Amino acid sequence: MPSDKAQPEIVLVRPQMGENIGAAARAMWNFGLDRMRIVEPRDGWPNPRAAAMSSGAGRLLDEAQLFGDLPGALADRTYVFATTARPREMTKPVFSPEKAMQLAAEKVAAGEKVAVLFGPERAGLENDDIIRANAIITVPVNPDYASLNLGQCVLLVAYEWMRQTGDVVHLADDPGPKGDWATGVEIEKLAEHYEERLTEAGFFFPETKAEGMKQNLRNLWSRMRMTRADVQMLHGIMRQMVRWKERG
Amino acid sequence: MPSDKAQPEIVLVRPQMGENIGAAARAMWNFGLDRMRIVEPRDGWPNPRAAAMSSGAGRLLDEAQLFGDLPGALADRTYVFATTARPREMTKPVFSPEKAMQLAAEKVAAGEKVAVLFGPERAGLENDDIIRANAIITVPVNPDYASLNLGQCVLLVAYEWMRQTGDVVHLADDPGPKGDWATGVEIEKLAEHYEERLTEAGFFFPETKAEGMKQNLRNLWSRMRMTRADVQMLHGIMRQMVRWKERG
Repeated sequence: MPSDKAQPEIVLVRPQMGENIGAAARAMWNFGLDRMRIVEPRDGWPNPRAAAMSSGAGRLLDEAQLFGDLPGALADRTYVFATTARPREMTKPVFSPEKAMQLAAEKVAAGEKVAVLFGPERAGLENDDIIRANAIITVPVNPDYASLNLGQCVLLVAYEWMRQTGDVVHLADDPGPKGDWATGVEIEKLAEHYEERLTEAGFFFPETKAEGMKQNLRNLWSRMRMTRADVQMLHGIMRQMVRWKERG
Repeated sequence: MPSDKAQPEIVLVRPQMGENIGAAARAMWNFGLDRMRIVEPRDGWPNPRAAAMSSGAGRLLDEAQLFGDLPGALADRTYVFATTARPREMTKPVFSPEKAMQLAAEKVAAGEKVAVLFGPERAGLENDDIIRANAIITVPVNPDYASLNLGQCVLLVAYEWMRQTGDVVHLADDPGPKGDWATGVEIEKLAEHYEERLTEAGFFFPETKAEGMKQNLRNLWSRMRMTRADVQMLHGIMRQMVRWKERG
């Protein structure tokens, strides 16, 4: 069963290679999309090559809806995006994947029925397909080299859907170490330990530079973002060096 | 000739299939990245399957730099991201591709030498690779289905690089000195110096824990973001402790 999650339908229009249909299914499911529609697939349906390529996302192919023409596939849709390799001479808004999926997320949240069309591998969507869309999505690629294939194009749109809806996984910006961060007093004690031993060892030399050297070392400790385990390790290193010395 | 544009180096670590190396080159060039480094490719180099798959982006393979080990590939780098399928239990910041490429764009603009590591297809980067990185990139995929391949992972990172450099957002992250950041080879030498002396001093004890302790220490060095002056100071600390011991 498809998930209950409201989402855009991904519509593959006249796809040619079964492998690419399988790759599109995998790309979708990586980012939590699981509703595919297929219009006039060149090699019929179901397609064993698609199934072979879809490892783990085969359910999407089993549940995909097959249509004989594009108007049929869009019959229940209220807002349609068409992906094209470059903006066409058409009076429609052209969005990046990012902006398009922002808009799609808003529309889906408001109860609209959204679709995103992807054309056949060789030539892409025809003008006759694009006239059925409300807006165009174009991935801003290197103008000297635009070679995204179908699966990659679906991947980038699905990735942006995930990014805009944020409902797959939340990654904090910098959760940092999972461990316990060292507290100020622990870092202070570490700094004192090193200063004391390094003074004994004659590290802060000459006298005139001693203050600056101590400052540099304190700066380093405070910049390090240490866990308690790190602090313990650094204490351990110094203790061991002292024991080593004392053993002579 | 590689483009003059300042950019991160894309480092493929022990890639297995030539096809995937070719796909990575295409993914990069779609978004204007053209500097690839390859470390210990399973099937040697050059690889005809990589060339066959790279249509139009073959120049990236011709110009790729080959390295016999990862430290060599990172010798001139000052900031390294490692891509992993899921956050590991390591004390490093974990970024989404978006945040990571924001940060990379700022660092590259400030003259830093950035690398992004991608692991072998089957198992990904090993802990021994990741300890050389300053931060981790994880693509937030569907937790029920994470099946991004190497080319797709490179594609998403390159796409985010394009997105972020199209209009760089300013992140107030990573404070610290604007000074001369230490390079990979300098940090490697520091790690070796400490490992050697601490081994003599009997720090890595008991034997069964020695590997883990060394890993923790390497992780600490790579997380510290040290300037050259910091590295010199840390060498100086260790040298002084040894001299102190030797004076008895």
